[in-house]
Amino acid sequence: MEPLNVWDYERLAAERLSVGAHGYYAGGADDEVTLRDNVEAFRRWRLRPRMLVDVATCTTATTVLGHDVSMPLLVAPVAFQRVAHPDGEVAMALAAKAAGTIMCLSTLSTSTPAEIAATEAPRWFQLYVFRDEGMTRDLIAQARSGGFGALVLTIDAPTRGNRERDVRTAFAIPEDLRIAAFGRGGMTPQQVFDEVSPSLTWHDLERLCSESGLPLLVKGVLTAEDAKLACEHGAHGVVVSNHGGRQLDGVSATIDVLEEVVEAVDGRIEVLVDGGVRRGTDVVKALALGARAVLAGRAPLWGLAVDGEAGARRVLELLRREILSALQLVGCSSPADVTRDRVTRAPAAR
Amino acid sequence: MEPLNVWDYERLAAERLSVGAHGYYAGGADDEVTLRDNVEAFRRWRLRPRMLVDVATCTTATTVLGHDVSMPLLVAPVAFQRVAHPDGEVAMALAAKAAGTIMCLSTLSTSTPAEIAATEAPRWFQLYVFRDEGMTRDLIAQARSGGFGALVLTIDAPTRGNRERDVRTAFAIPEDLRIAAFGRGGMTPQQVFDEVSPSLTWHDLERLCSESGLPLLVKGVLTAEDAKLACEHGAHGVVVSNHGGRQLDGVSATIDVLEEVVEAVDGRIEVLVDGGVRRGTDVVKALALGARAVLAGRAPLWGLAVDGEAGARRVLELLRREILSALQLVGCSSPADVTRDRVTRAPAAR
Amino acid sequence: MEPLNVWDYERLAAERLSVGAHGYYAGGADDEVTLRDNVEAFRRWRLRPRMLVDVATCTTATTVLGHDVSMPLLVAPVAFQRVAHPDGEVAMALAAKAAGTIMCLSTLSTSTPAEIAATEAPRWFQLYVFRDEGMTRDLIAQARSGGFGALVLTIDAPTRGNRERDVRTAFAIPEDLRIAAFGRGGMTPQQVFDEVSPSLTWHDLERLCSESGLPLLVKGVLTAEDAKLACEHGAHGVVVSNHGGRQLDGVSATIDVLEEVVEAVDGRIEVLVDGGVRRGTDVVKALALGARAVLAGRAPLWGLAVDGEAGARRVLELLRREILSALQLVGCSSPADVTRDRVTRAPAAR
Amino acid sequence: MEPLNVWDYERLAAERLSVGAHGYYAGGADDEVTLRDNVEAFRRWRLRPRMLVDVATCTTATTVLGHDVSMPLLVAPVAFQRVAHPDGEVAMALAAKAAGTIMCLSTLSTSTPAEIAATEAPRWFQLYVFRDEGMTRDLIAQARSGGFGALVLTIDAPTRGNRERDVRTAFAIPEDLRIAAFGRGGMTPQQVFDEVSPSLTWHDLERLCSESGLPLLVKGVLTAEDAKLACEHGAHGVVVSNHGGRQLDGVSATIDVLEEVVEAVDGRIEVLVDGGVRRGTDVVKALALGARAVLAGRAPLWGLAVDGEAGARRVLELLRREILSALQLVGCSSPADVTRDRVTRAPAAR
Repeated sequence: MEPLNVWDYERLAAERLSVGAHGYYAGGADDEVTLRDNVEAFRRWRLRPRMLVDVATCTTATTVLGHDVSMPLLVAPVAFQRVAHPDGEVAMALAAKAAGTIMCLSTLSTSTPAEIAATEAPRWFQLYVFRDEGMTRDLIAQARSGGFGALVLTIDAPTRGNRERDVRTAFAIPEDLRIAAFGRGGMTPQQVFDEVSPSLTWHDLERLCSESGLPLLVKGVLTAEDAKLACEHGAHGVVVSNHGGRQLDGVSATIDVLEEVVEAVDGRIEVLVDGGVRRGTDVVKALALGARAVLAGRAPLWGLAVDGEAGARRVLELLRREILSALQLVGCSSPADVTRDRVTRAPAAR
Repeated sequence: MEPLNVWDYERLAAERLSVGAHGYYAGGADDEVTLRDNVEAFRRWRLRPRMLVDVATCTTATTVLGHDVSMPLLVAPVAFQRVAHPDGEVAMALAAKAAGTIMCLSTLSTSTPAEIAATEAPRWFQLYVFRDEGMTRDLIAQARSGGFGALVLTIDAPTRGNRERDVRTAFAIPEDLRIAAFGRGGMTPQQVFDEVSPSLTWHDLERLCSESGLPLLVKGVLTAEDAKLACEHGAHGVVVSNHGGRQLDGVSATIDVLEEVVEAVDGRIEVLVDGGVRRGTDVVKALALGARAVLAGRAPLWGLAVDGEAGARRVLELLRREILSALQLVGCSSPADVTRDRVTRAPAAR
Repeated sequence: MEPLNVWDYERLAAERLSVGAHGYYAGGADDEVTLRDNVEAFRRWRLRPRMLVDVATCTTATTVLGHDVSMPLLVAPVAFQRVAHPDGEVAMALAAKAAGTIMCLSTLSTSTPAEIAATEAPRWFQLYVFRDEGMTRDLIAQARSGGFGALVLTIDAPTRGNRERDVRTAFAIPEDLRIAAFGRGGMTPQQVFDEVSPSLTWHDLERLCSESGLPLLVKGVLTAEDAKLACEHGAHGVVVSNHGGRQLDGVSATIDVLEEVVEAVDGRIEVLVDGGVRRGTDVVKALALGARAVLAGRAPLWGLAVDGEAGARRVLELLRREILSALQLVGCSSPADVTRDRVTRAPAAR
Repeated sequence: MEPLNVWDYERLAAERLSVGAHGYYAGGADDEVTLRDNVEAFRRWRLRPRMLVDVATCTTATTVLGHDVSMPLLVAPVAFQRVAHPDGEVAMALAAKAAGTIMCLSTLSTSTPAEIAATEAPRWFQLYVFRDEGMTRDLIAQARSGGFGALVLTIDAPTRGNRERDVRTAFAIPEDLRIAAFGRGGMTPQQVFDEVSPSLTWHDLERLCSESGLPLLVKGVLTAEDAKLACEHGAHGVVVSNHGGRQLDGVSATIDVLEEVVEAVDGRIEVLVDGGVRRGTDVVKALALGARAVLAGRAPLWGLAVDGEAGARRVLELLRREILSALQLVGCSSPADVTRDRVTRAPAAR
């Protein structure tokens, strides 16, 4: 039977992928408390639907940093996508294009920015700042010349999270997969990470924002304090993210700190969120708490793993349909209609 | 052994029904979080019984919208009841009549309003407003001529909830079952729902209230805001309902929002509630939180599935006896005695 | 291996007793939510031990209604004890005597008050008020002539709780067991309960208090309101009790409402509590929340079932030793030292 | 495969040790509620990481009572370590020395203070005060002459906790293991404990502090009240501890009362904490709540049991690396940077 939802794709992908590859994508840091909490936390929020609103012309379309998207869900940057499927990031970009949304390309992509540009998919570029400044400058230049619409700077990785699944499976990126940022392969994810700068500061961010020539979002904000600093240092947006539970275990689920960040930003820049999105109702909850849109990483990746571009496209389409249905049932005609009163904390367990 | 409670009937019905039919009745939307929460939420409330009250003459009888009922529990509208048992809605109406309570007939009934009228059961008519206005007018005319005492307008279904159990079992209403509202059969529930209007507004409700010539309750209110609008637009009652967890997954359990609605209504009209009722103590908790009565759908349906009219009657009688016992043990001589202080939140789990 | 704690006795008793007899003692009303919650609720409270207190001369002895007891734990009234062991209530009384505490004899005892009096155990008499006033008067006369030190009036049973285990096992009190209150046997517990008056009021209680010639405690108080009424109508003590979860399912665990009752009583009379006591630390928590003592029913009954008088005595001795140890470790030299600050709510689960 | 974390060592140790020895170390008092809660409570706190802090030169080094340590984690006193491994406390001391941290030697050590002194490991001495004052004086003299840097006085053991695992396995310290404090072997832990004084008071503590000639920490403080008394009576530090859940079951997890103690101490002396530490993030949470450092008992003991000195060293090194990583990811360059805002309560479960 055809998979009906993201959970189905998750199960199928677990069957298709090698234990090592599956663990690499599915796993998190340490005891995976935050990994699980990202998903479970959505269940601690309850929707408050309004009735007798005319939703006959409901649309999921919105804009993010001024870019039109078919829905408030973007494809999050995921590293090494050819490990999941031979067509890798190119297939994902084509799926995003077909779905009318933005593909965020990882610095640790197995396709070059130019290859993604050739798909003509709406595209953003996720950036790691490396110890070697030239390498960073080169990446930004590639993003600019490849027509990427924004940079998404990952700021939560001064060191790599402790992902024990990868150690247990002795997972390494296959030798034949080229890493665009390095022009070479055969490295473990850990070796790649060792090149990421642990010294980046808000001052450096400010310089990046002014020099890169591209709108810049910072990904990895989990506190009101950092949200304010992002605004003050020139970021064009923040992504509330805990790196999918892969960096510091024991931090909050992203949906649980979204409101704190939204209040601190106070409308100055756009707030996005990633982590744990599995259903259209998750997206509507994030909108109600103030997100402009969500980024989904594992969900379309499972689609890619199961059936290449078609699988990723199907997952995105499933999510778009779920978002549409959730908007109608919550009594909203568009993402902009989803106000704060549409969501409330669930009562504590008894 | 004879079934002792609603859970027993639930288990037996699961054995008797086909997987598809059982899934259709038992299932909910998406991940069924709200479906489960409707039941579990009652356990987050604790009764506060008062002692040394003379309860020798305790009665469960009350009135709902001025109609006498033997107990504060009505039969909720459930679609396509001949799928559960060949005698369908007629058997359910006879069971309600025997139990001294009101049968709410679904628009999506497999018996006509006239057939239900012939049972002489106390009866209300659940209404969907369709895209085709003539169809809606015709339904109201049938309800009026059939002596139905009130209309129960379902307002939480501008689109159909995502019920994956039905997709997995490829469930369809059997060809030979006529749908009263359409005069034809062989449709999937989804096809029927596609005819429901997604454009209904509070303005339309106001017109319905004044034109229908019948008292009208709106079913599907989950917020104080909508409860106030219902009062202001002429509804004679509201039913706090999430459609048995079958429409928007992730909304609150009905018992958890009942008080918010009751406070917003502030005594202007009557408030009923459905969802998750399995025990007499559930009913007493709802009364304490301000409900005039509850509607039970699945509970009597399991009785119908197990043993036709006799099964439904037995479930209603079991519930009536449990309500009586709960009233006595909580120190009340009638439903009207169940004041707000008889219930309190359970302490949070530790 | 010799049983080490109450849980061990509970398991052994489940092995020794018939399914029907075990279910009768172990079971509760409806879904047994309150039955389980009585035990679990103790885990929602945390002890706050104080250090460097000289506890070399620690004692568990205290007084209840002026009677000396070796520990703040009495034997709760449990019906039909010969169903658990041929030696029944007489063995239990001898165990209580050996342990230096009070035996509360149930009205529904399978031994007469006179037989218990012959044991010379410290003794109280649990009273049901029956529809037949003469029968009630006769019971009080038996209690008085038998030298019972107090009456414990059960007020939470105007009708019998719905105990489905007994129906499923078709449990009945064996024909050959005489019920002291009726002078005859062969009745089901339900038949006995049908004779209990559902009409008793606080006015009747006041009359009982003045006419009985014995101190009177009311057992079954779960609210501040009823606690105040008990004080105002002449009761000498209240027992916070939900009848071991056997009457109205869905009421609070007793330990969770103890403080509300203690505050309402405000020192005017003594407050006892029963329900869910399995460890010495449970007793210390109850003392900290203001109880004068606890009553334990099932715990010594499991001892009786396993090994007659010796088993009940061993359970009481285990509990006494656990109370002593808990007092020392919480930094108290006697029950009177256990102040409110020795206990606090556990943090909510996350 | 090489063990990756403390959980791995815990599992391996359970395989290596006899049931009795394992139960002795792993077990707790009564129902082990506090034992489990010590671990689980860390999950009720969430880290709040700050981004774009330069953490290139991050260090785990700190000081405790003025002593330099390589990390804010000390080896807690654990009794009878030769039961876990033939090399016992000497191996543990060498592991602590290699890891650059302090070994706390138990009074109930199977090596003499002099043997530990010979390792030249940084060392503190855990002290029980015995009924026999001469014995206590002798222990202090041994600690002083052995160059131990501080005394850690255990104050939560006026009587021994009820550890049923030891009774069920009939666990006794092997005859051939000499207990330093007694100069003899073949005693059960219970027999040793019977010699501990139940009469110690804050007055006695004050005398010990002035007479011992060594800095003195009191271990076992769980309340603000006792924390203040410790400050007022001359203690140089407090250890928030519930004896690893081995004394009074039902007390709070230590991490849950740490802040209460820190606030009461108000900077006058240093606060340490033990109980439930399994991950570097646990340590960072404790630092954020005001601890100067944590003590880990079972974690290095599992290492000792698995592989002697090398195993204990490896566990300490794993924890040091995890602490380093957690510091970097939470945006701190040293333990001193971990301020209160880096941790917050997790939302209650729903």
